Amino acid sequence: MPDKQLVPDVPASELRFDPVSQGWVVIATGRAKKPEQFVKPKEESHGVGEEDPCFFCDLKTQLPPKLLKGEGDNWKIAVVPNKYPAFTCCFSLDEQEIGPYKKINGLGFHEVVITRDHQKHIGQFTVEEVKELVDVYQERYLELMKEKFINYISIFHNHGYAAGASVAHPHSQIIATPVIDPGLSDSLDGSEKYFHQHERCIHCDMIAEDLKDGRRIIFENEKFVALCPFASKVAFEMRIYPKEHHAFFEQLGNEEKAQFAEALSAAMKMIDAALQDPPYNFFIHTAPCNGKEYEHYHWHWECFPKTSVWAGFELSTGIEISVIEPEKAAEFLRSKREDRF
Amino acid sequence: MPDKQLVPDVPASELRFDPVSQGWVVIATGRAKKPEQFVKPKEESHGVGEEDPCFFCDLKTQLPPKLLKGEGDNWKIAVVPNKYPAFTCCFSLDEQEIGPYKKINGLGFHEVVITRDHQKHIGQFTVEEVKELVDVYQERYLELMKEKFINYISIFHNHGYAAGASVAHPHSQIIATPVIDPGLSDSLDGSEKYFHQHERCIHCDMIAEDLKDGRRIIFENEKFVALCPFASKVAFEMRIYPKEHHAFFEQLGNEEKAQFAEALSAAMKMIDAALQDPPYNFFIHTAPCNGKEYEHYHWHWECFPKTSVWAGFELSTGIEISVIEPEKAAEFLRSKREDRF
Repeated sequence: MPDKQLVPDVPASELRFDPVSQGWVVIATGRAKKPEQFVKPKEESHGVGEEDPCFFCDLKTQLPPKLLKGEGDNWKIAVVPNKYPAFTCCFSLDEQEIGPYKKINGLGFHEVVITRDHQKHIGQFTVEEVKELVDVYQERYLELMKEKFINYISIFHNHGYAAGASVAHPHSQIIATPVIDPGLSDSLDGSEKYFHQHERCIHCDMIAEDLKDGRRIIFENEKFVALCPFASKVAFEMRIYPKEHHAFFEQLGNEEKAQFAEALSAAMKMIDAALQDPPYNFFIHTAPCNGKEYEHYHWHWECFPKTSVWAGFELSTGIEISVIEPEKAAEFLRSKREDRF
Repeated sequence: MPDKQLVPDVPASELRFDPVSQGWVVIATGRAKKPEQFVKPKEESHGVGEEDPCFFCDLKTQLPPKLLKGEGDNWKIAVVPNKYPAFTCCFSLDEQEIGPYKKINGLGFHEVVITRDHQKHIGQFTVEEVKELVDVYQERYLELMKEKFINYISIFHNHGYAAGASVAHPHSQIIATPVIDPGLSDSLDGSEKYFHQHERCIHCDMIAEDLKDGRRIIFENEKFVALCPFASKVAFEMRIYPKEHHAFFEQLGNEEKAQFAEALSAAMKMIDAALQDPPYNFFIHTAPCNGKEYEHYHWHWECFPKTSVWAGFELSTGIEISVIEPEKAAEFLRSKREDRF
């Protein structure tokens, strides 16, 4: 393990397996609270500037960066280990069976990607700045996937307190894990099933249908298309697909990254204008890095604006209820494009 | 269809199938908003009494009740069709294929179970009042499952605005649908797999382990056990299982319902005392009512207090991060029991 994280004060988390749903949960005691501290919900505070001083602005108080773009005080993007990691890598994989249950220690990596400006979120970035961020995502992905025990890497970004961002300073996160949850494998399996039945990629067929229909498209350039998906789980959900079939995000070439950054920037500017800087989560869905082929999979980017609450029905059945057609959401987003169609 | 709902002003919702995840979403345009209305998140308002007048208190303005316990102005529990139903039953099942996509109309039932007192939520009910509510759940379940096109019935309760309750007056909901989402079928499949491998019910084995261990148990009577699950997805998650193996909630006998009500009442009082009336969602997980046997399944009740936000990592991987061990959460809940262990 060449790239150990030193997080001496933080106990290792553990992953517990649910033998019924076949899903995993992480019990991350590193950021544990006393039971009493769950009593008061924190106040809604979506915005920037509330930390004083912001510990992402002052990187000296942080663990040594894994990656730094720019020099000294002029750094532009920094990658540091998460202070309260859900996954750490200072030990070997340890599996324990307890009756019908199973748990493993939280082996993996949990990194934070920090952009320099405390006030400037991605919707305010230039396309070039978005491209630099995508470069960093890819660079760290390629580094972390070298570890043999890593099978999946999730790159995600939480914006706004209501979307789970506990620190206001804009940052993305990268979590690399040994496990693949049914939440992901259902989609991998669905893609594979369709591929074997039709000898075509389901994502390619969806993109072709969406381009033909036109109503759900919000942005398009030569290599990428941004759209509101046909089966949107939440209002104003957005995705970006490479038009060309490709399973692996990390294999993006430089020109493709530039075009992806252009699409990502356009989508972020539209959602910001349409919903006036809403809280959101975005992430990259890419094939696992476990050495398998995944010719049936097609990587893409997804964004869930926090437009609704997952309540009892969603939690109990997995079926989401959305109150606006994606076609209407897309129409509204397009109307906010600076350069219009 | 003997039991038609009359909702003349509300357009039928539609269910869209995601061919990748194999999951369903409901596009419920009945409660559609204009795109502009998604701009401002509603203010956090968790509490009671803010509607004036409350349309659940004044049932005369509602659609005619499906069921009424008590008489006239002295009614205690009423069941009415949801004013903005995600599912309605005034038509036959219509499936449409659009390229790689599929959609069906939102055929089904969506009912609201209203208890009389605007100010009194379930944690404040007597055991007898909880029992009356469980009676009504069962009565409506047995009625709705008669419809041939209904394959799953979800009974759930949202408490507090942060948990998705848009009306403050205490109420539960019942949704009956033709579809079963992977969110549910993963757990049905997991139970079945274990049953075939071990010739035992996975839930029975989990209950036996939990009772042996003791640390996660929060309440127990002769026929039911309440606990914080080993692989809790959120802090202070609670479940209630019948100790005896049984797949179907709706087959509960009267004495069992009384004991279930006692366990449910105890759990609600503990969580109220521990987290000071937190927002939460609870629901019943029971075997589908599609005529199959489900000998491997074991019905139960689950409660998710709103102690965290599902953010980018959870949305992208399906893996939840919890920051307190269920053993510690259970200890804290037990310390709040009125009659203590």
